[in-house]
Amino acid sequence: MIRVAIGGPRGKMGQEAVHTVMNNENMELVAVLDHKEIGDLLSESPEFPASYDVPVFLDLESLISSIKPDVFVDLTTPHQVFEHTMMCLQNAVRPVIGTTGFSEAQLELCSKIAKDNELGCIVAPNFAIGAVLMMKFAAMAAAYFPDVEIIEMHHDQKLDAPSGTAYKTAQMIAEVRPSHKQGHPTEEETLPGARGASYDGIPIHSVRLPGLVAHQQVMFGGEGQLFTLRHDSFNRQSFMSGVTFSINQVMDLKELVYGLENIL
Amino acid sequence: MIRVAIGGPRGKMGQEAVHTVMNNENMELVAVLDHKEIGDLLSESPEFPASYDVPVFLDLESLISSIKPDVFVDLTTPHQVFEHTMMCLQNAVRPVIGTTGFSEAQLELCSKIAKDNELGCIVAPNFAIGAVLMMKFAAMAAAYFPDVEIIEMHHDQKLDAPSGTAYKTAQMIAEVRPSHKQGHPTEEETLPGARGASYDGIPIHSVRLPGLVAHQQVMFGGEGQLFTLRHDSFNRQSFMSGVTFSINQVMDLKELVYGLENIL
Amino acid sequence: MIRVAIGGPRGKMGQEAVHTVMNNENMELVAVLDHKEIGDLLSESPEFPASYDVPVFLDLESLISSIKPDVFVDLTTPHQVFEHTMMCLQNAVRPVIGTTGFSEAQLELCSKIAKDNELGCIVAPNFAIGAVLMMKFAAMAAAYFPDVEIIEMHHDQKLDAPSGTAYKTAQMIAEVRPSHKQGHPTEEETLPGARGASYDGIPIHSVRLPGLVAHQQVMFGGEGQLFTLRHDSFNRQSFMSGVTFSINQVMDLKELVYGLENIL
Amino acid sequence: MIRVAIGGPRGKMGQEAVHTVMNNENMELVAVLDHKEIGDLLSESPEFPASYDVPVFLDLESLISSIKPDVFVDLTTPHQVFEHTMMCLQNAVRPVIGTTGFSEAQLELCSKIAKDNELGCIVAPNFAIGAVLMMKFAAMAAAYFPDVEIIEMHHDQKLDAPSGTAYKTAQMIAEVRPSHKQGHPTEEETLPGARGASYDGIPIHSVRLPGLVAHQQVMFGGEGQLFTLRHDSFNRQSFMSGVTFSINQVMDLKELVYGLENIL
Repeated sequence: MIRVAIGGPRGKMGQEAVHTVMNNENMELVAVLDHKEIGDLLSESPEFPASYDVPVFLDLESLISSIKPDVFVDLTTPHQVFEHTMMCLQNAVRPVIGTTGFSEAQLELCSKIAKDNELGCIVAPNFAIGAVLMMKFAAMAAAYFPDVEIIEMHHDQKLDAPSGTAYKTAQMIAEVRPSHKQGHPTEEETLPGARGASYDGIPIHSVRLPGLVAHQQVMFGGEGQLFTLRHDSFNRQSFMSGVTFSINQVMDLKELVYGLENIL
Repeated sequence: MIRVAIGGPRGKMGQEAVHTVMNNENMELVAVLDHKEIGDLLSESPEFPASYDVPVFLDLESLISSIKPDVFVDLTTPHQVFEHTMMCLQNAVRPVIGTTGFSEAQLELCSKIAKDNELGCIVAPNFAIGAVLMMKFAAMAAAYFPDVEIIEMHHDQKLDAPSGTAYKTAQMIAEVRPSHKQGHPTEEETLPGARGASYDGIPIHSVRLPGLVAHQQVMFGGEGQLFTLRHDSFNRQSFMSGVTFSINQVMDLKELVYGLENIL
Repeated sequence: MIRVAIGGPRGKMGQEAVHTVMNNENMELVAVLDHKEIGDLLSESPEFPASYDVPVFLDLESLISSIKPDVFVDLTTPHQVFEHTMMCLQNAVRPVIGTTGFSEAQLELCSKIAKDNELGCIVAPNFAIGAVLMMKFAAMAAAYFPDVEIIEMHHDQKLDAPSGTAYKTAQMIAEVRPSHKQGHPTEEETLPGARGASYDGIPIHSVRLPGLVAHQQVMFGGEGQLFTLRHDSFNRQSFMSGVTFSINQVMDLKELVYGLENIL
Repeated sequence: MIRVAIGGPRGKMGQEAVHTVMNNENMELVAVLDHKEIGDLLSESPEFPASYDVPVFLDLESLISSIKPDVFVDLTTPHQVFEHTMMCLQNAVRPVIGTTGFSEAQLELCSKIAKDNELGCIVAPNFAIGAVLMMKFAAMAAAYFPDVEIIEMHHDQKLDAPSGTAYKTAQMIAEVRPSHKQGHPTEEETLPGARGASYDGIPIHSVRLPGLVAHQQVMFGGEGQLFTLRHDSFNRQSFMSGVTFSINQVMDLKELVYGLENIL
């Protein structure tokens, strides 16, 4: 039985995580950390059923000293994660971090302490296992198919294009293949933008339509063939398999791992 | 039995058309028009089997006066089609034209003569029935789904982007829906070109990869749903169903039709 | 301003419909019909905000005589719809029916009364406009592409296969194309079921996976080409565009229409 | 410069392989093996241009003793491959075998001799690198997504269903995941075959349509997400990247490798 505490239980991701841990038969939700006084027990907050009698703490220090959880899943805001992670690592609690917000230096420091204390720690910018597999496999396939394009598709309320996942995918591909211009050397756009954005020569196309959720496909072309990787995320539930996986994995680790692609 | 003559029998499209008519049990290939002396019979040209004993003509006038075909399928170069079409229409031969190259005025003139003579004539910029259906249905769907994006995908030897089919599709959609900006009003490209080209507010994305042939998908998004039309052309054979269809249809027409979408 | 009443406001579809009408600036929600005493006003039911001060009725007769709505959207259980529809049609209220459950004879009777009274009435087994377009276009395309296969994909909690939409699509295709066996005449399944189910010779394949919602693609193959229609329904919102459309259309109709494909 | 000999140069695969090696700047085509007297040089056979002055041999023994190639690519018929492979391995020629047709015992024997002689040997049932990656990644993904279905799509001249690639994919998945029934425990087919064929609980669906070439997609479903791998083979060219890759790799190997998935 893994004893889990969760930070940020009332956020969108947090609520899902609370339910996920409560319903997992190998895990026990032993405490939550909130920044607002929502009562002594999680069940007092209107988002949760009366049966969720999990103690609520307002600071991580008290939570750790009273409860001594095995794992702390941090779904709070980015500006707190470094402090939280340090406190966990110095108190034999394994952090699973779902928000980015570390500087390079902070990451190195956490990594060193984790190693010194032989304590597992997982920092995951993306918990959707399907998305992480897509990126990992894309980097592997690029060794054999140097020509690749990325199409990412999201709902039309998304403000930025390309998506973070598309950037990350292109970056992972760029690390394994020689940079080169794709398409015909003299190709021409008769309407500007038709050939998409370019990240190190990899075209990225961003579709925005009402109704869509979060989708990406990575297409590799070779003589006479096409190889495609695609991930569709239909709702926030898609992140929960990665949270569960991380909680289980972090128990066996003795160091910090950045990115689920390194342990999948 | 429809008596068919073909112009340009040795071109890529022409060869396919010759085989298609030869193998159609309701059609007879009665003559071909070539600009080069390739012999008296098609069978003397190395591209064709010995059994193709079809007379070859070097000018259309002699072909028509000697053979009097029902239909003349013109797959020659664009600069000849107007002259050929006029000659056919004035001599009771129905033209099926697979090359563009008419001016607006020429088209009107042909249209008038066809009507006066009550003679069928088909001018089809695209013979692939699937592609034509995709465009026709896209224009129909746009009445219910005003938000749409086009992704066209071709081999990386293609020089221009977007493709002609993508332009034509966007144009047909633009005719039936009020022009409007799609995506979030304040959306931002962090890499230029990510959101594609814009034709009357419709984003068009052009993918170019080795291995691809000619593919297009039109995606309509609405609340909670996505509706997609897609056409894949795997080889030149895809045009032949449209040629056969046109030869059959032109026999019943009594006027000029521009674009197969108007008779499908 | 169209004055709308809704039957079954607390069901899954009903709740969405209530919100949709409340938020539509050309419509007014003037009453709801419930079979349970939930209070005098919709706002007293916990599913709805305090601002929804819409009167609740327990029988349709009182609702009609007190409120005289223009349109009654019936999202109640199938066994009541016939009685409801008759009552509406006899009292100058236009029914929009989202549940099936009519016998052939009942449908004919309603149709006759609607015609006699010159009153619009819409019976729609499927309100998702994208799904209806897919079926309509499939029937149109089948005239040119006699070979077609259907792949429908749903979450793995669905009990029956194929889906109702797949049946309906196959049925609409079967009406316009000559029945014939597809595939190679001597093809063989080395594992039984590989070639799917057959509806009048049209193969139907049912995929069931966790994570999926409701998806269908209809694939037409011809020489050298593939033409594909696809609908993805990501959530219940996908039905609301059809409800809105029907409320608007039924005002102009003077007869009963069965299936949105006949007015799209 | 790798000195390559090819067996079966006039077959469909063989012709492509001849052109591929002739056009590769790091390879030299030093001989071909044919079972028919086609002349002393490949250029005398009508399939090849006059510049292909490559010696033709009628038996492998003479070829090896006269030419001593580095690699022998065997694209002849299955019943000869064992004998050819043995002869190569005993004479310091590295075999690249593209046809199946080995018994388990034969494979073991070849494997032993390759190891004893420290000679590379590649036996590849599938040379399309994209297809091999799809299978390899499918087996990797199955560890995280136990629910998976396979859809394979081919032209309607294919006689057997499912395809060999679908079988092989299912087999590789079955090796890494616990066998279990997918779908709802009480799901029901109202038309038999709808849920496809089953290989160790993995549904396989076979689509057969004119126009299609060879396509497969493997779909993994998890809570809120779908992960898809897809390979499209548009023509025989798709195998050539695997042939080139194998010729290069076999030079560095010191043992027999069965299946490109083990060296990709």
